[in-house]
Amino acid sequence: MDKTPVAVVGASGYTGAELVRLLLGHPRVEVSGLYARRAAGERLSARFPQFAGRLDLSIEPFSADDVAARARIAFSCLPHGESSPIVRELYQRGLTVLDLSADLRLRDAAAYEMWYGHPADPLCREALYGLPELAGPDCDFRGARLIAVPGCYATTALLALAPLYRAGLVLPSGLVVDAKSGVSGAGRTPSADTHFPEIAEGVRAYKVAGAHRHTPEIEQELGISGIAFTPHLLPMSRGILATCYARPTDPDRPAEAYEQALAAFYRGRPFITIVTAPPDTAHVRGSNRAHLFATLDQRARLVIAMGAIDNLVKGASGQAIQCMNLALGWPETEGLEATAVFP
Amino acid sequence: MDKTPVAVVGASGYTGAELVRLLLGHPRVEVSGLYARRAAGERLSARFPQFAGRLDLSIEPFSADDVAARARIAFSCLPHGESSPIVRELYQRGLTVLDLSADLRLRDAAAYEMWYGHPADPLCREALYGLPELAGPDCDFRGARLIAVPGCYATTALLALAPLYRAGLVLPSGLVVDAKSGVSGAGRTPSADTHFPEIAEGVRAYKVAGAHRHTPEIEQELGISGIAFTPHLLPMSRGILATCYARPTDPDRPAEAYEQALAAFYRGRPFITIVTAPPDTAHVRGSNRAHLFATLDQRARLVIAMGAIDNLVKGASGQAIQCMNLALGWPETEGLEATAVFP
Amino acid sequence: MDKTPVAVVGASGYTGAELVRLLLGHPRVEVSGLYARRAAGERLSARFPQFAGRLDLSIEPFSADDVAARARIAFSCLPHGESSPIVRELYQRGLTVLDLSADLRLRDAAAYEMWYGHPADPLCREALYGLPELAGPDCDFRGARLIAVPGCYATTALLALAPLYRAGLVLPSGLVVDAKSGVSGAGRTPSADTHFPEIAEGVRAYKVAGAHRHTPEIEQELGISGIAFTPHLLPMSRGILATCYARPTDPDRPAEAYEQALAAFYRGRPFITIVTAPPDTAHVRGSNRAHLFATLDQRARLVIAMGAIDNLVKGASGQAIQCMNLALGWPETEGLEATAVFP
Amino acid sequence: MDKTPVAVVGASGYTGAELVRLLLGHPRVEVSGLYARRAAGERLSARFPQFAGRLDLSIEPFSADDVAARARIAFSCLPHGESSPIVRELYQRGLTVLDLSADLRLRDAAAYEMWYGHPADPLCREALYGLPELAGPDCDFRGARLIAVPGCYATTALLALAPLYRAGLVLPSGLVVDAKSGVSGAGRTPSADTHFPEIAEGVRAYKVAGAHRHTPEIEQELGISGIAFTPHLLPMSRGILATCYARPTDPDRPAEAYEQALAAFYRGRPFITIVTAPPDTAHVRGSNRAHLFATLDQRARLVIAMGAIDNLVKGASGQAIQCMNLALGWPETEGLEATAVFP
Repeated sequence: MDKTPVAVVGASGYTGAELVRLLLGHPRVEVSGLYARRAAGERLSARFPQFAGRLDLSIEPFSADDVAARARIAFSCLPHGESSPIVRELYQRGLTVLDLSADLRLRDAAAYEMWYGHPADPLCREALYGLPELAGPDCDFRGARLIAVPGCYATTALLALAPLYRAGLVLPSGLVVDAKSGVSGAGRTPSADTHFPEIAEGVRAYKVAGAHRHTPEIEQELGISGIAFTPHLLPMSRGILATCYARPTDPDRPAEAYEQALAAFYRGRPFITIVTAPPDTAHVRGSNRAHLFATLDQRARLVIAMGAIDNLVKGASGQAIQCMNLALGWPETEGLEATAVFP
Repeated sequence: MDKTPVAVVGASGYTGAELVRLLLGHPRVEVSGLYARRAAGERLSARFPQFAGRLDLSIEPFSADDVAARARIAFSCLPHGESSPIVRELYQRGLTVLDLSADLRLRDAAAYEMWYGHPADPLCREALYGLPELAGPDCDFRGARLIAVPGCYATTALLALAPLYRAGLVLPSGLVVDAKSGVSGAGRTPSADTHFPEIAEGVRAYKVAGAHRHTPEIEQELGISGIAFTPHLLPMSRGILATCYARPTDPDRPAEAYEQALAAFYRGRPFITIVTAPPDTAHVRGSNRAHLFATLDQRARLVIAMGAIDNLVKGASGQAIQCMNLALGWPETEGLEATAVFP
Repeated sequence: MDKTPVAVVGASGYTGAELVRLLLGHPRVEVSGLYARRAAGERLSARFPQFAGRLDLSIEPFSADDVAARARIAFSCLPHGESSPIVRELYQRGLTVLDLSADLRLRDAAAYEMWYGHPADPLCREALYGLPELAGPDCDFRGARLIAVPGCYATTALLALAPLYRAGLVLPSGLVVDAKSGVSGAGRTPSADTHFPEIAEGVRAYKVAGAHRHTPEIEQELGISGIAFTPHLLPMSRGILATCYARPTDPDRPAEAYEQALAAFYRGRPFITIVTAPPDTAHVRGSNRAHLFATLDQRARLVIAMGAIDNLVKGASGQAIQCMNLALGWPETEGLEATAVFP
Repeated sequence: MDKTPVAVVGASGYTGAELVRLLLGHPRVEVSGLYARRAAGERLSARFPQFAGRLDLSIEPFSADDVAARARIAFSCLPHGESSPIVRELYQRGLTVLDLSADLRLRDAAAYEMWYGHPADPLCREALYGLPELAGPDCDFRGARLIAVPGCYATTALLALAPLYRAGLVLPSGLVVDAKSGVSGAGRTPSADTHFPEIAEGVRAYKVAGAHRHTPEIEQELGISGIAFTPHLLPMSRGILATCYARPTDPDRPAEAYEQALAAFYRGRPFITIVTAPPDTAHVRGSNRAHLFATLDQRARLVIAMGAIDNLVKGASGQAIQCMNLALGWPETEGLEATAVFP
């Protein structure tokens, strides 16, 4: 079987490297090009020693023509604002493009501009929001050529909440998403906030009171506005746990109903496990799997729904490959079957 | 100045050791006896090498007569159910007793029995709930001889929420306390759940849906029932962060009002700092200080209040010493002035 | 292609789970049975939630007949002393057996008895020491039916040191192996020493002065006695770094010679990478790869050789599968090609 | 008692903050000024929130006249090369100056220039090397006005090795110091190497083969050249463990002799504890104490000596205060008596 050539643009950061890791284990593709601005000229294994002896490509400066000549599929891991112009070039050249940035995630251009501080790219109207488990029946990934891969927090919260809300089990008002993330979600660029001793033995929230840019993404996909989303930074590298609180439409519904609703909604979905004890991000580390949980706090009359994923896999690169598989008509789990690395 | 002799009963665990650490720096007391069942016969420094060269006492089997002969003040770090009988013996012998267990925290004996599975000790009616910052004007610590030291989660949540609720800024219904704790809160006894590799790179909730025994303690002190309290375990040793969500009584009140309410309430209290950015548990590590924060999530119309403490200090042993200081009429901060050890 | 059925005996611990993780990604085998004493009756996914939705086997009590009826290859992850009797039963029934315990590693029965405190199993004379990269030309893995998989520390130290010693570059006397290990090497059974708060923010040596049982294994394979081996425990879950110090036979030999000797020795070996900067265990996490490094400390006239591996993969389960591949005549890297999960 | 005013120059980093933390608990001094280039104008508590409510000073741009007007003692935490010019200015103005940089540690100007790449400051001839436990009888701290505070690695290695070497128990050749450090030793400036996800789950050596600048410091104080010193970076914030290997002058000397030699040498020294099990950095965290250990690896005929300290306390700011106490004729332990914060 001839392998399909794929390129990774923005290969110098964590999501880029995670794409390469996963693509190397995918039986239908081969990594034919790596591109980045800052790291251009470096060998991948100099920047990420885990690839030494495994992939000896050099990272190159981006050129749309070069990518188009060498790849049929491209992933962009560039920052928002920088990504969509390059995605456009590749899309226009006929490639299937998976954009891991936020540039094409919001369908409402005004909302995009408000949250990101620069105008939305009109291309966002053509992009599919790449969360396959929640895509409706009229959303066909097969043949899609432009996919906006969701944010890591949005993926986690949506997987836990959307089935309950769509089934009418919880009310749209008063939703709280209290999320806990590892530090790799902040990327590979060093900063005062991610310096090891500042993080190692503490926990703190950041961008509180609805200041985080994944808020509108959650709201768009749920079709609800006014969600309280509070991200927290934890002393671990990978993983997101979203603890969600929602008001039940019927407080007398038994606690089991919520778990059953998740199980029914996700029946047959290969990457979703409904767990009966609160999920642990350690159990999905390195895998594309989501562990979901729901119950009722009877005393408080609140539904508690939780989702745990690996932010770099199901929250980014793994989900991008899952979308690629579906778009190309390949088995959804191809290249994504690895079990979590625990402990 | 003659030093007052104090005894620590249950000195073999983390809160016992933390008491010793803090008492060694207290100018008015001297540690005259250490007691424990399991570790009796061991030297403290064999069990806790940090005391080598600092305190060479042996841990002894408990005897109320022995404690009474050697100490005027006693701290009990025994587990609930085991603590109150021993507390009673010491109290009856005239000592000032600070009970760090849960045995005397709940005033409602029926509630105690429901949550703890064994009958309440009637002594609970005589004990003062030892959270000085929230004690009302008719609650006089001076001269108190029996103090129930609050739980670590309860302390954190109450410090953040009580001033807002008492000032009428938030509604009693729909309160959510999403708490994140280091592992030392689980004590020093090894278990499958606290084995290093099971914890090191993940986060998970436990005792969800109102199953944690600090729930009734928070509710008792707030005078509210039906709070959603969800504790989480994080890969760090010390620290609790409580992220609280509450419905404002007036959604149009400016965000600053909540911070100002905290500041007004705690004016002059030596261990409370109102911070203007979300608090980090790393910044209170090893100290008796609480960092508190409050704001409004305007989009979600929810008040967000946060508290960060060191669970072993302000959440246990430090608070016990603070209570002792007040009960004895000593300066409240005596022995508790150390700055957090950061990083 | 029909898959070869394999069984894992001692499936309730970390090396057992790691075997399952890796075997699930191996194209030529299927996991046909899981056995353990303590966890018998439990589902694998109850004990290790990372397998939920991936492998739904129950763990069963061991029976040699049952294993023989269902598998052609068996891995034993039982503790030393318990393993060899069971290995013998399976070996006698014609299975290919890979023993991850220490029972069959030492060829000198007296040495075994001295280090392990119980008599050696005579079976050790028939077992192959399963470190393929260092096996001599007269050691043929193909067709081997009984393999003693090396210890994690021994693997790391031997990979770094053996080529230098065999090439006559370093002297046999004065060898120092200062090793640093993650906590998963201690297994999954909780203990006071591996309780999270005892480990999280410190480093310590243990079993110093030649007290660790991997010492004789290193010495046997090098053919040297009197090595100083000092293991240390670090606040991380996986990984071993061995920093080795050796006296050069010729102090004037250039520093590059040592790196070149490693490169020459391991040419073509698929799991070995010679790195030019000191290796980091984070870069081999989850993979079967070893990163090796050697240089000369010219001022001190000492050769410094380092090896970094994942103790659960190249130091245990991955190496066992590598041995299986060779024994069965399959490609050496089958099922073991995954890149490290970094960060 | 009037308190002596002290200033901290270079107050924006970890050693500066640690000085402030310790000085706040010192009964004879008051912090009268904080100075730094980069952070000038910031309040200390904005930069280090642990001081909120505790010390409300602003950090100011440095002026020697200003410091001299406001303080009698000054600590410099500036980087090497920047420190000594400022130290000189303060020294000339009559202050007692404690330099935590490397500028005045090496007495051999040529060695300084070789290791640091810029000329030595002649002032180094007047500075006392501030390791009180190892200072000879002719080295009088009392009245000293210029003290070069040792490096963290040097302190650890010297405390463990010097007594054994001075007592003639170990040979000068073949010394190995394998050191393991927390990340705070790298300072507070973010870098690619200290970004949380790069550090969190791995261990690596750096500046191997005698490239680390603490090497000449260890050699100078031991009076030995050619020591193999290899520093390693570990996923923890504080702490240094030095594992030292030395050849015994008499291999038949009993193992206890080495521990006894340490005990005899340090008899009466308030910050030294000789431990009988390998020391753990967690047990000295936040304290000025060193835990030392020595034994013989009889099989390898090597002495193993270990030292564990907190790099920011006994390895920097605590030791500086200890030197200040001695220089001023105050009790050596004043302000430094706190027990380690464990866990």
